[in-house]
Amino acid sequence: MNFLKIFLLFSLLPVAFSHETFDSRLLPRPLILEYPDIAETHFNDLENELRLHCDSWRFSVEANNVNPWKTIPEECAGYVKDYLTGRAYAYDLERVSKEAGVYAKSVELNGDGKDVWIFDIDDTLLSNLPYYADHGYGLEVFDTVEFDKWVEKAMAPAIKSSLKLYEEVLSLGFKVFLLTGRTEGKRKVTVENLNNAGFQEWHKLILRSADDHEKLAIIYKSEKRSEMEKEGYRLLGNSGDQWSDLLGTSVGLRSFKLPNPMYYIP
Amino acid sequence: MNFLKIFLLFSLLPVAFSHETFDSRLLPRPLILEYPDIAETHFNDLENELRLHCDSWRFSVEANNVNPWKTIPEECAGYVKDYLTGRAYAYDLERVSKEAGVYAKSVELNGDGKDVWIFDIDDTLLSNLPYYADHGYGLEVFDTVEFDKWVEKAMAPAIKSSLKLYEEVLSLGFKVFLLTGRTEGKRKVTVENLNNAGFQEWHKLILRSADDHEKLAIIYKSEKRSEMEKEGYRLLGNSGDQWSDLLGTSVGLRSFKLPNPMYYIP
Repeated sequence: MNFLKIFLLFSLLPVAFSHETFDSRLLPRPLILEYPDIAETHFNDLENELRLHCDSWRFSVEANNVNPWKTIPEECAGYVKDYLTGRAYAYDLERVSKEAGVYAKSVELNGDGKDVWIFDIDDTLLSNLPYYADHGYGLEVFDTVEFDKWVEKAMAPAIKSSLKLYEEVLSLGFKVFLLTGRTEGKRKVTVENLNNAGFQEWHKLILRSADDHEKLAIIYKSEKRSEMEKEGYRLLGNSGDQWSDLLGTSVGLRSFKLPNPMYYIP
Repeated sequence: MNFLKIFLLFSLLPVAFSHETFDSRLLPRPLILEYPDIAETHFNDLENELRLHCDSWRFSVEANNVNPWKTIPEECAGYVKDYLTGRAYAYDLERVSKEAGVYAKSVELNGDGKDVWIFDIDDTLLSNLPYYADHGYGLEVFDTVEFDKWVEKAMAPAIKSSLKLYEEVLSLGFKVFLLTGRTEGKRKVTVENLNNAGFQEWHKLILRSADDHEKLAIIYKSEKRSEMEKEGYRLLGNSGDQWSDLLGTSVGLRSFKLPNPMYYIP
């Protein structure tokens, strides 16, 4: 925010001076230049304005009103970074998992091994925050080559609250399906990364086959869910950070949208 | 927030004093009781904490993670009021309409009179904010009798940004369908209210018939949209403040979720 402050200071100086000039015509005033205070007020006003604007953008993203989008708005770069690295993102993630946990406990399982909870992987179970920290938290256009290098490291940490939910739904007797946009070629590193992060047990890990490469995520994931239904599975819960994880067809009984103001996948 | 401040002041005094006692053991300090400053710091901390908590609740509501819910959380009463009566709600409403307008202009119309935009009415076109202002902005459990009295007055003002979008989609050549949870008995006052608020032209106003009274909104609205599709209409846009306006079946090409942290309709 410091760069912004300096930029605003210089752009506000004329305002500060003109204000001073205007007042001095009307009232006798001490000859003390007050622009730092005035500038500070303007800083606060402008910071509030920026917060209003970026809060509104984030709401639009999370409610799926603004789509598609390629990068975060430049003016919200600081806001998004603060959101992700401060307490708010973790707080939001935890709330989603808690809501999901309450629902998972409330839903009646058939117990025939056909009760399913679906999890997306990236930024739902595993966090790519360390990668995005090096790439402007969504300010840079997505770079497949760079991101693949990160994936190959198998070093993405677990989202703590998601791991807790994961263990909870397993212990309740749900069958867990992992449905990811990653391709089959990434199976080995994905398993390795999941295990390293504490995810040990799942019924099926579904990755994109060659046939699925060109499909939009929302189509590919809908098709895979439809296959599950045809095999007799009941899709009771679905957790994902993208609306393309949750919308489309065969959407199941309940969906949980994890926050993600870093990127958008159609 | 004043009640909260007073409550917090009293609950924080012990903290303030204990802090004072602790410090005075370690360092020589002037004998001036500093608790107002300390309390002020705690106020800010607690206000930030409350903001984090209520921001997170609002995100959960708007992303459809927390559902169903009957009233807003008691501790967020001030937050919700500030949101609705300050600039943020209007700002968010305007952004949704702008996004919808950009989409409406971008979508290719067939021009055969079958291109449809659906609008919900309550808190999508007409604002019930004056009613909710008298009922704790969602803090009170919904009261059908009281709300009906308000509806009968036909005095709900237009949501300005929605009226603008409405006129925009009409001028682009969309057929407008109004799909509301209000019952047939309310047709006359609804038309009167819409006209008073500036909504003059629509293709069809669909209200709940006797058969639909007991249905969940999400079922009733899905059925009505399905009928439109069967009649050959293409559902290109859909605006609503409830997820039950937008999810279900026959969901159309694009949906726009207007903010509403006051109430939830399943």
